[in-house]
Amino acid sequence: MTLYHDSDSIAAMDKRIRAAFINSITGFKPANLVGTADSGGHSNLAIMSSVVHLGSHPPLLALVIRPNPVERHTLDNILETGVYTINHVSADIVEPAHQTAARYPRDTSEFAATGLSELWIDGFDAPFVAQAAIRIGLKLRDQQTIALNQTHLVIGEIVHAHAPQSCITAEGAIDIEAAGSVALSGLDSYHESRRIKRMAYAKPDQPPRELGQG
Amino acid sequence: MTLYHDSDSIAAMDKRIRAAFINSITGFKPANLVGTADSGGHSNLAIMSSVVHLGSHPPLLALVIRPNPVERHTLDNILETGVYTINHVSADIVEPAHQTAARYPRDTSEFAATGLSELWIDGFDAPFVAQAAIRIGLKLRDQQTIALNQTHLVIGEIVHAHAPQSCITAEGAIDIEAAGSVALSGLDSYHESRRIKRMAYAKPDQPPRELGQG
Repeated sequence: MTLYHDSDSIAAMDKRIRAAFINSITGFKPANLVGTADSGGHSNLAIMSSVVHLGSHPPLLALVIRPNPVERHTLDNILETGVYTINHVSADIVEPAHQTAARYPRDTSEFAATGLSELWIDGFDAPFVAQAAIRIGLKLRDQQTIALNQTHLVIGEIVHAHAPQSCITAEGAIDIEAAGSVALSGLDSYHESRRIKRMAYAKPDQPPRELGQG
Repeated sequence: MTLYHDSDSIAAMDKRIRAAFINSITGFKPANLVGTADSGGHSNLAIMSSVVHLGSHPPLLALVIRPNPVERHTLDNILETGVYTINHVSADIVEPAHQTAARYPRDTSEFAATGLSELWIDGFDAPFVAQAAIRIGLKLRDQQTIALNQTHLVIGEIVHAHAPQSCITAEGAIDIEAAGSVALSGLDSYHESRRIKRMAYAKPDQPPRELGQG
């Protein structure tokens, strides 16, 4: 049986029910920890599932930041220093990663509070997560407030990238499943993955075909 | 051993290697089919992995559309009719879903070309994918070109939502794993999921704890 909602029934939902419903409806999301620091070097770490690819040349990623206190600390730091890091969550750090969503006071570092370790690179003013297998350092390139709901769109260029050498494929991709990265769904579910298919580049005059099938 | 890249080494990569690397570095992505039609009702369908949650009240999703011919047909249709659909890809339709990325001529419908079926709702001028368990109908609310690389950001409000009743949790979320939705990584890998943990709402004065552990 199919559940159906329209604008009116969505607007009439209890607030928590609606948040759970709408946050799960887009599909699987990346589970990333965003690392920042203020101009005094005080670190901050926040789990976010809103990173999206914008382009490869230059390598640009967009990040949607919600207007709540937890994400606001991250945004303030990005605007202050112009840099931030994105670090993949793997199964072994799901618990401390999720805990960074708690509303700690501004002067509490989520690294210290959750037991995750800071990793700093000379000359780059945002901390990476030492436990993460895949780590990205970004430089702020553009940012704006979305007028419709006051969320912030932050666009950064990748200036540092770390990934396990053993997880790089022949085509140059990072095999993020092999690296142990997890996916998020809704507000609170973490998932491991199992690759079912790799598909060849699609062409109009050829049927779909799998890669690596002999 | 950790692979390291900086801005210069990323810029120096071969174009295909760089696309594979940067497209895989953000983490898992949703696998969605975006359905549209032109003002004459001619349908179009394109796989996209760039849907991101913007807010729940009003229920807003953002979609990044790249400036290539395949995605351009989708954008033109959205601007023409003001509506579009987002449909989850499940394991049984990975092959036709991926095939929609082929550069078919504008007058070829990817529904007809791939064997996926159109589902229309009275008064809504974009087709849903009949085979998808989770289907969303959106009304265009805002759109802009990102100056840095000419990608388009399309913001829509959810006005129709279909999901299997059996996949709705007690909290109101859609269990997208139970619904069979798959995740994407990089440009061509499709993954099933296995839930490892559901975490309780994080609070500063409480340690992380799993839900559903008795």
